[in-house]
Amino acid sequence: MAEPSRQQSVPSVARQVHLASRPRGWPASENFAVVEAPVPEPAAGQVLVRNLLMSVDPYMRGRMNDVKSYVPPFRLGAPLDGGAVGEVVVSAADGLRPGDLVLHGLGWREYALVDAGSARVIDPALAPVSAYLGVLGMPGLTAYAGLLEVAGMRPGDTVFVSAAAGAVGSLVGQLARLKGAARVIGSAGSPAKVAHLRALGFDAAFDYHDRPVRESLREAAPDGIDVYFDNVGGDHLEAAISALRPHGRVAICGMISQYNAEEPAAAPRNLALLIGKQLTLRGFLVSSHEGLREQFVTKVSGWVRSGELRYDETVVEGIEAAPAAFLGLLRGENLGKMLVRL
Amino acid sequence: MAEPSRQQSVPSVARQVHLASRPRGWPASENFAVVEAPVPEPAAGQVLVRNLLMSVDPYMRGRMNDVKSYVPPFRLGAPLDGGAVGEVVVSAADGLRPGDLVLHGLGWREYALVDAGSARVIDPALAPVSAYLGVLGMPGLTAYAGLLEVAGMRPGDTVFVSAAAGAVGSLVGQLARLKGAARVIGSAGSPAKVAHLRALGFDAAFDYHDRPVRESLREAAPDGIDVYFDNVGGDHLEAAISALRPHGRVAICGMISQYNAEEPAAAPRNLALLIGKQLTLRGFLVSSHEGLREQFVTKVSGWVRSGELRYDETVVEGIEAAPAAFLGLLRGENLGKMLVRL
Repeated sequence: MAEPSRQQSVPSVARQVHLASRPRGWPASENFAVVEAPVPEPAAGQVLVRNLLMSVDPYMRGRMNDVKSYVPPFRLGAPLDGGAVGEVVVSAADGLRPGDLVLHGLGWREYALVDAGSARVIDPALAPVSAYLGVLGMPGLTAYAGLLEVAGMRPGDTVFVSAAAGAVGSLVGQLARLKGAARVIGSAGSPAKVAHLRALGFDAAFDYHDRPVRESLREAAPDGIDVYFDNVGGDHLEAAISALRPHGRVAICGMISQYNAEEPAAAPRNLALLIGKQLTLRGFLVSSHEGLREQFVTKVSGWVRSGELRYDETVVEGIEAAPAAFLGLLRGENLGKMLVRL
Repeated sequence: MAEPSRQQSVPSVARQVHLASRPRGWPASENFAVVEAPVPEPAAGQVLVRNLLMSVDPYMRGRMNDVKSYVPPFRLGAPLDGGAVGEVVVSAADGLRPGDLVLHGLGWREYALVDAGSARVIDPALAPVSAYLGVLGMPGLTAYAGLLEVAGMRPGDTVFVSAAAGAVGSLVGQLARLKGAARVIGSAGSPAKVAHLRALGFDAAFDYHDRPVRESLREAAPDGIDVYFDNVGGDHLEAAISALRPHGRVAICGMISQYNAEEPAAAPRNLALLIGKQLTLRGFLVSSHEGLREQFVTKVSGWVRSGELRYDETVVEGIEAAPAAFLGLLRGENLGKMLVRL
């Protein structure tokens, strides 16, 4: 192909967020550095994207540790990455044109050089671009696959979800209701969030700071639960195992209570209950459930358009605020999806 | 029907073992009482059975506690019960005649009054009667269903089983080999048992007293495992979770390390690994897998006859020794199935 096509003038340098040091325990702002770097020119098959919104997600905490896991650790002195949406400003790739809006995996920077194969064009007429990072994106598919495929939720089930005011949890609870759950229970970290869960249609909700989770859950689900969608681990998981009825199922999506622990975390001491109650605990990654994406997008976008499913966003402004947004996410300062507008 | 038919003279009193008190922690002989009781006469639809062999099983420990579980607790001052085989001596039931050998659930007594619907006639020409309490009975079906249905073992899997010299574990390891496992690893509690596992065809075996299970398992399975059949819980489960490869599966059959614990037991602190490795932990009861029984009996009896599958029995003589047999089982004094000959 000929010269890369460009729509607008591009600065020669732009900002990105580096991992300056690896956190021990809770991360802090000094673990991050906002640095200026040259804006590169796309090679053949690439596009230069001006990022509009980037996502911060709990799983990123694990990537800050130097351990082998399902995704490689972030490198020191290099930009972080993660979900982002942006506008193609220079294209050297067939099929992508300046002005196209794309979803890709190179957030934490104002301008991203993206391989065309890693960018997915999104349609702002179908949904706000932010939705592609939340309700119609990775968190949405996580909720959908975890609840329906991993936990195998069935109509009539009583469903409990932790971190229920977060991007994933708030969808899990609403999806459970839409799929015919008998009762939906959520836990969250503040009275305002608890009130919000009730407004979203949760049958019961509690603040896990108030009392032992076990007690709150017993009161909220006196007859037990069938499904637990775990975003938290620790005492939430232990309480859920005690509350589960025979053949109950746990989809383990995250354990945010443990991500900043410097010691091995407290573990559920009641795993022997798995035997007599014939329980299943299953960890999962959304990446293994791509086969559900089409069904998920069709169903969930329909429910969003009809107003049956609501989603919330907490948006922080400017790349320099991205580290604070991430730290705030770990402290639970968000309602719904935490995003940074660049 | 007419008078009950009888084959032989029946004593007026016989011995049975009662639960004298509920153990705290490790049970002891004073928790049991061998008492004489009148031998009853069968009512219509019942048979009187002279028990020949009775089973002692780890799950019985849980029934000694006064807690609601999947089977009701044993009652104080009443006979214990459990698997037994015996000979019908008086029948007041159609279809059962004196001399028939039957498998039933009223062990821990010399004579049992059994509802005909709870007795299954067994054929001593097909297998020794003891096999119906072990390799062809509940422990055998437990191993078969747990390995193949609950853990979904596939050819090429590396399989680890704990309490591998016990009635269930020794079958799990051999079934895994017969079903095409790439590598079979067992843990047991003595050097003699470890040697026995190697003789049974296990590729690797270790004594869990020697070193931390995690270290022994890493050496025995340097490339990790795909399936763990858990009879033990605690540090074995934690080590297995660390060793499991992506999409690994755990069938949780028992947690004998915890049955006598007076405090809530140590729990695996690495459950967060379930997420990134997409692991499944599933507790099960053999009673939910009756649908496999016919297939199981056909396959396993064939392997036993051909000599491809071996089974061991540790037999203790006399009902007065039944409590000691049970206590010995909890301490791991058995090789293979622990039985009491009455």
